[in-house]
Amino acid sequence: MRPRLGVAYYPEQWPRERWETDGRLMAEAGLSVVRIGEFAWAELELAAGTFDFGWLDEAIDVLATCNLAIILGTPTAAPPAWLIEAHPEILPVRGDGRVHPFGHRRHYCPNQPAMLDATRRVVSALGDRYGGDRRIFAWQIDNELMGRCVCAVCGERFHSWLRERYGTINALNESWGTAFWSQRYDDFAQIPLPELDPVPFPGGFMAHAPNPSLALDFRRFTSDSHIDFLRLQADELRTRITVDQGITHNLMGFRFPEIDYHRLAAEIDVVSWDNYPSLDRSARWTSAALAADAMRGLKDAPAWIVEQQVGPLGWEILRTQRRGQMRLHTYQAFAHGTELVGYFRWRTARFGTEQHWYGVLDAHGGVGRRYRELSELARELSDVGDALDNARPIAPAALLHDYDSRFALQVQPTNPSLGYEETMQRHYEALFASLCDGPYDGVREMLAATRTAGSCQSQKRR
Amino acid sequence: MRPRLGVAYYPEQWPRERWETDGRLMAEAGLSVVRIGEFAWAELELAAGTFDFGWLDEAIDVLATCNLAIILGTPTAAPPAWLIEAHPEILPVRGDGRVHPFGHRRHYCPNQPAMLDATRRVVSALGDRYGGDRRIFAWQIDNELMGRCVCAVCGERFHSWLRERYGTINALNESWGTAFWSQRYDDFAQIPLPELDPVPFPGGFMAHAPNPSLALDFRRFTSDSHIDFLRLQADELRTRITVDQGITHNLMGFRFPEIDYHRLAAEIDVVSWDNYPSLDRSARWTSAALAADAMRGLKDAPAWIVEQQVGPLGWEILRTQRRGQMRLHTYQAFAHGTELVGYFRWRTARFGTEQHWYGVLDAHGGVGRRYRELSELARELSDVGDALDNARPIAPAALLHDYDSRFALQVQPTNPSLGYEETMQRHYEALFASLCDGPYDGVREMLAATRTAGSCQSQKRR
Amino acid sequence: MRPRLGVAYYPEQWPRERWETDGRLMAEAGLSVVRIGEFAWAELELAAGTFDFGWLDEAIDVLATCNLAIILGTPTAAPPAWLIEAHPEILPVRGDGRVHPFGHRRHYCPNQPAMLDATRRVVSALGDRYGGDRRIFAWQIDNELMGRCVCAVCGERFHSWLRERYGTINALNESWGTAFWSQRYDDFAQIPLPELDPVPFPGGFMAHAPNPSLALDFRRFTSDSHIDFLRLQADELRTRITVDQGITHNLMGFRFPEIDYHRLAAEIDVVSWDNYPSLDRSARWTSAALAADAMRGLKDAPAWIVEQQVGPLGWEILRTQRRGQMRLHTYQAFAHGTELVGYFRWRTARFGTEQHWYGVLDAHGGVGRRYRELSELARELSDVGDALDNARPIAPAALLHDYDSRFALQVQPTNPSLGYEETMQRHYEALFASLCDGPYDGVREMLAATRTAGSCQSQKRR
Repeated sequence: MRPRLGVAYYPEQWPRERWETDGRLMAEAGLSVVRIGEFAWAELELAAGTFDFGWLDEAIDVLATCNLAIILGTPTAAPPAWLIEAHPEILPVRGDGRVHPFGHRRHYCPNQPAMLDATRRVVSALGDRYGGDRRIFAWQIDNELMGRCVCAVCGERFHSWLRERYGTINALNESWGTAFWSQRYDDFAQIPLPELDPVPFPGGFMAHAPNPSLALDFRRFTSDSHIDFLRLQADELRTRITVDQGITHNLMGFRFPEIDYHRLAAEIDVVSWDNYPSLDRSARWTSAALAADAMRGLKDAPAWIVEQQVGPLGWEILRTQRRGQMRLHTYQAFAHGTELVGYFRWRTARFGTEQHWYGVLDAHGGVGRRYRELSELARELSDVGDALDNARPIAPAALLHDYDSRFALQVQPTNPSLGYEETMQRHYEALFASLCDGPYDGVREMLAATRTAGSCQSQKRR
Repeated sequence: MRPRLGVAYYPEQWPRERWETDGRLMAEAGLSVVRIGEFAWAELELAAGTFDFGWLDEAIDVLATCNLAIILGTPTAAPPAWLIEAHPEILPVRGDGRVHPFGHRRHYCPNQPAMLDATRRVVSALGDRYGGDRRIFAWQIDNELMGRCVCAVCGERFHSWLRERYGTINALNESWGTAFWSQRYDDFAQIPLPELDPVPFPGGFMAHAPNPSLALDFRRFTSDSHIDFLRLQADELRTRITVDQGITHNLMGFRFPEIDYHRLAAEIDVVSWDNYPSLDRSARWTSAALAADAMRGLKDAPAWIVEQQVGPLGWEILRTQRRGQMRLHTYQAFAHGTELVGYFRWRTARFGTEQHWYGVLDAHGGVGRRYRELSELARELSDVGDALDNARPIAPAALLHDYDSRFALQVQPTNPSLGYEETMQRHYEALFASLCDGPYDGVREMLAATRTAGSCQSQKRR
Repeated sequence: MRPRLGVAYYPEQWPRERWETDGRLMAEAGLSVVRIGEFAWAELELAAGTFDFGWLDEAIDVLATCNLAIILGTPTAAPPAWLIEAHPEILPVRGDGRVHPFGHRRHYCPNQPAMLDATRRVVSALGDRYGGDRRIFAWQIDNELMGRCVCAVCGERFHSWLRERYGTINALNESWGTAFWSQRYDDFAQIPLPELDPVPFPGGFMAHAPNPSLALDFRRFTSDSHIDFLRLQADELRTRITVDQGITHNLMGFRFPEIDYHRLAAEIDVVSWDNYPSLDRSARWTSAALAADAMRGLKDAPAWIVEQQVGPLGWEILRTQRRGQMRLHTYQAFAHGTELVGYFRWRTARFGTEQHWYGVLDAHGGVGRRYRELSELARELSDVGDALDNARPIAPAALLHDYDSRFALQVQPTNPSLGYEETMQRHYEALFASLCDGPYDGVREMLAATRTAGSCQSQKRR
């Protein structure tokens, strides 16, 4: 497949009469993919079981008419107010013991029965309506799964999870070493949820409180909870999909340490991820490279970037991208085996938490520098497109990467200079440099590498 | 009016037999104003409706005999233990969800009915007794209004406030942009109070959680709640005042960002404020100048400083004032249009949270350096008094300053270097420097300017 | 007495068949003391009143056969899961209002009746069984008493404590100065527990909230609560001890500021303490010296170190000790009047919170560098042993040290550079230097001093 460019769009946030203009501008810029719907629950289900698909039908019509292939999101990352009002127990309990309130996003516990029921209802309704629609070429389940909940239901589920893993409480005692500090359990029900953050030891000393095996198993359990929640949705969709539609989820790249992405990837058809190079101030040029390679490695197959930074980021305004940086990151993505790059987002929002998170268009809706850079890039890509057609990176070296080990090192991180992520990245950089016959010195080399539209390795072998 | 000097005094904290000595020492130092009563609720109302005004009558007698004009405070900033015991719901709920306990001050929610009832009772009793007393020339309502409460009553009141502002829930949805992240409300009652502080996003990322319009409106509501509380007291007093008595409240200067002081100032006769130049370590010489000008600008009329730093500050001991600094800050105040400077406090406390907050006298009660500096300053001022008689600063430039904009920038502050307060101050400094034909370089210039007892501008025009 | 070396051992954490090997290796290294049992509650009392002393009898046999004298701990620092399940109210409430969960240690409130009952039961059972056993030469009560609890029972107990101290509420009002900020109480029951940590003043300012006298008295009360808990155990043991057995508790050295160690020391026969020179990164060479002298001074008698650092510390890996540092710290201890040094711990744990806290042996159980260093040191000590026999440091200077003053300065610490602990240490260093006729410059001097196996002072006087 030749590389494709796309964008995230939120028709529900803009006047109906603007949609055609947006679709046309997207097409004129050379985009061929648009992602919609992944936060639109309240607009799709007005009350429990009362759906309004009219506007979405219309938006799909408008966008498809502009030759845009559609990724349709399930909207479960933002449960509506009416659902929370009826089932406040859905709100997750944070590590500090407080309930995460409505008014942000990801305000749900993935184990709460009421959330699972509502999820089945909305996902199956979407599947029924669009599972046979060829204009939809992929589904994105939820958005950036993450978060830990310590509610009572999670407690019960954790006990079941432990019972399944260890069989008997004595096996758990033996495995966890509860002889230390008299922590022997007589029953699974006695086991507390661990405190997630360093806590003040009575008296003021900070301490990572729990038995490390308890803390490690809770991390595994949390990861499994998210994956179970994703699988529930995938199952609902698969029974309803009758045409060629893939299922994906947008992961958070290599740095995100909470979910076992190897196991998650097994549940989806394509790995997608979100790439915001300016979000982490400590990021280096190799950060996105490592992320792209790690995400590709999850299924040993081309991955998609469904959210690629296109301008300054909110919620706090961080560094503005320099001219050319969007082009650079896009080539870097393709060089590392990415098949599709979708920019986030089409137009800067006029409201909401991300009002300072800049899109391709500014809030006023007119075209500007970022639109023009994107259009130019699309043209350039279409010129080199044959060279990239079905190109695959050559990987003469590999790094083994294991989420269980990462989880374990989170519990008692020992020395900061030995952090798992940093250690992986330093080895990655050393391998990269040695395979390129020289140190990897950032912007200049990357630009040279991307000019020939291949990764460092493929460039050398040609 | 010629400039006047005064002091804050707490007769209830000292033996009865000391009062005459204190009054005499004040008068000998050249003070003509004393502020009393603003934390004495428990001494004035011994149980609900049981008042003891005897000691206050006596204190007023003693002080008035020494030719001291009196500012009388309403004591609502510190509700007594018996009131909290009967109505624990008065205690405010902080942003972190915990109840602010008894044992400090400002331990009340300004929207709680029980607090409003008790406030009416004590304020009307004070008004009845002293509203016709010519020895009282002004009332100070409460003390340094501030704080945000997220109790259930505040929640209900916030919903009413929103209903009044927007009329319909759809108008609110449209205005707030609740299409973002599926936050559409069907009913005002669904709207949560925002989390006030950056909160850990599930998973550890820090985030300013709420919809920015929700957060902004809650700031406006909180500001209104304090102003309503002040107005309730002003109304009670006005119906009882039969002689020439003004109503004031001590504001916190320019830096304080929680209350719309333009709106608050409309409810009182005179703007007072508290000036502690050493409290904020980042303060510059222009900080107090800007504060004095901003406070004067609220009513475009001379303001009072009812608390002026006189020595080292508690609760932690911060920097001690250098010799002459009290004189310097006093001249700066008069140069910027202040009419009265009251020092805080007369004598260093022997107990309580402010035991390290130094007064004119040390805790032992004898006269020392600060008393002598103050006496000398009063003599000096009486010599230059004619020059300052009804002097008003000339303001060849103005800065527009808007609390709504400040509130909005608190919600998503974008880049720290663009902070509202800092931006205002930098513009103020630039204007100050250019109008003085040279850079404003701190102590030396200020001393030169204050020597001639006029502001920079008036000095040049003479 | 000649100096003795020992080690902390946890037989319950290792296979039964390993115990003989461990005992033999200890003896071969030259150790003569072993401390056991202080976290073994769950292994000793399987359910309320159901004891299993078999394994402990056997462990004592094995160790005593190797000529190791035994310190036996009472296990109350880690109440078992079954006790917490039956009496969840035992879990302490932290300063932040949250319950300290099971799964760490010190998870009990020392005032909770159910904890006191369970403590009496397990301690009296241990006393009955081993109070006449000559192989046990000392008892250690609990482990590192510390922590503040703000549960409801503590609240009631605090009110009783205040009633006993002040007699009438008016005496308390007078003493505390509740005239400040209207804090007068009509009844002891109105008095809140103070907030323990700096709290956000409503509106975001940080403040040490409470009346300083309230905060000071709560510190005294907390200290008394721990001492009462210790006395309860000492009383149970004393009625059961029929041979020559001493009672001790392991204190935390000079830096620990929560318990009045002068009063605690009066309840025990010997002062023990724990010495981890690398735990506090700001520690200097004089830190352990001051601690040793302060601990010796509590009873003006030789003290024991029952936990001496032997390798890198968890819970985070801190600095590894250099070669020779164990020897250095041991000589320092003896030079400052210590009679027994017990290393912590024998073998690095395979599990639990302290899995990275290194022992004499590594986790694999084989001998290595630390074992060899220890053996060499023991031989060396046995050579110089006569010189140290009953040696007592000469103290030509003394520092007065008062816990009430420390508590008071914790409440309103004024300027950090005036901190009680730091001020004490600087005076200690100055005296040390002047008595040694030169500056105390760390490693080199200490090594020289310890080479002659006496303290600085005794060395000069010889």
